[in-house]
Amino acid sequence: MAFAQLVLIRHGQSQWNQENRFTGWVDVPLSPVGIEEAIQAGKLLAKKGYRFDAAYTSVLKRAIKTCHLILEELDELWLPVTKAWQLNERHYGALTGLNKDEMIAKHGAEQVLLWRRSYALQPPSMKAGDPTNPAADAKYAALASKDKPLTESLKDTLTRVLPYWESTLAPQLKQGKRLLVAAHGNSIRALIKHLDGMTEEQIVELNIPTGSPYVYDFDEKLGKVRSGYVKDF
Amino acid sequence: MAFAQLVLIRHGQSQWNQENRFTGWVDVPLSPVGIEEAIQAGKLLAKKGYRFDAAYTSVLKRAIKTCHLILEELDELWLPVTKAWQLNERHYGALTGLNKDEMIAKHGAEQVLLWRRSYALQPPSMKAGDPTNPAADAKYAALASKDKPLTESLKDTLTRVLPYWESTLAPQLKQGKRLLVAAHGNSIRALIKHLDGMTEEQIVELNIPTGSPYVYDFDEKLGKVRSGYVKDF
Repeated sequence: MAFAQLVLIRHGQSQWNQENRFTGWVDVPLSPVGIEEAIQAGKLLAKKGYRFDAAYTSVLKRAIKTCHLILEELDELWLPVTKAWQLNERHYGALTGLNKDEMIAKHGAEQVLLWRRSYALQPPSMKAGDPTNPAADAKYAALASKDKPLTESLKDTLTRVLPYWESTLAPQLKQGKRLLVAAHGNSIRALIKHLDGMTEEQIVELNIPTGSPYVYDFDEKLGKVRSGYVKDF
Repeated sequence: MAFAQLVLIRHGQSQWNQENRFTGWVDVPLSPVGIEEAIQAGKLLAKKGYRFDAAYTSVLKRAIKTCHLILEELDELWLPVTKAWQLNERHYGALTGLNKDEMIAKHGAEQVLLWRRSYALQPPSMKAGDPTNPAADAKYAALASKDKPLTESLKDTLTRVLPYWESTLAPQLKQGKRLLVAAHGNSIRALIKHLDGMTEEQIVELNIPTGSPYVYDFDEKLGKVRSGYVKDF
């Protein structure tokens, strides 16, 4: 048995995943398929004997609900659940809400490919008056203005995820805790890039499927003992 | 508008409420009726314009799930939710799991009436080897032995609820917060006895219905401005 354990899971399919739209910080609910994916992930973890000491998620309902559905299947709804904006999805700026066809029609296929393949390139900023601007959302009221983005590159997302890893997740794991993190494609990419020492090129190409728990086992020094999708073990 | 606000709600009907069994610290899920009660309570609060800053619940799933269902209806799943054993239901000792008929058959109608009407009388203790003994439950592993009861009077329940009120809930309200507390018949009785200055006789007679939000408005000094069931306002 591992000294400490981290299970990462991207939320189940959201209503906008289904429509192939860039979602980012827009608080879109799970689709019926996404709810079922979360329940199945919980059943898989239960069947494989996973138990947790605490859970962490973003402040976006698609991840929170995924977390709750998994804990319910594990009969661990009583665990402390911390909701952190730092684990939010990447903010897609002015691309938010667009689907791939709309984006190509608006910005051209070449530019879209650049954005998709880039680690440090930000999409254009969301307009300040956009109703989904984080500055207008009660759930970010307590945040400093600099922490309410109007756009983010993947690099920007790492820049907020990694301090949360260092301040909150890593210290728990160093105490031997077993943590569940229910988050988003890009906040999970940030953690995996850090944990697996991936290059910028590698992490841009890494696809994180919805509802598929990915486990890290650690030793006392937070060295990786093994990692992989839970279904493979 | 009130300076601070507290909404208390007893969880929706549980599977053992339905069978008329004393539940206490046994972690019984909501019945389908209870799930619907929680959703309707959330819809009522949303319709009446209630918003919260934080939510508190017990470590028992019937209260946690009630809390989650309400927050989902309010579109406030992102709020911090604190799960505290101090808000658990009264521990019914050796009466746990019995329905009223079984209790009368086992202990006699007169004794049962005494237990039901008494403020300070404890039922006989649960056997230490009982599979539902809190000492055997992972969710209480971090608690001191003295905090894992084998039985409680209503008075004993107050004795753990009120320090939690003083240490955690009251300070939040003094800062002007709006709190949701999703808990249990007897932990809510404890809070109401304290807030309304009820006598021991009065609190024993007070019935707390499932799924019915009860609101307190407070002024800056935590003086009560008004209180009552949300449906009545």
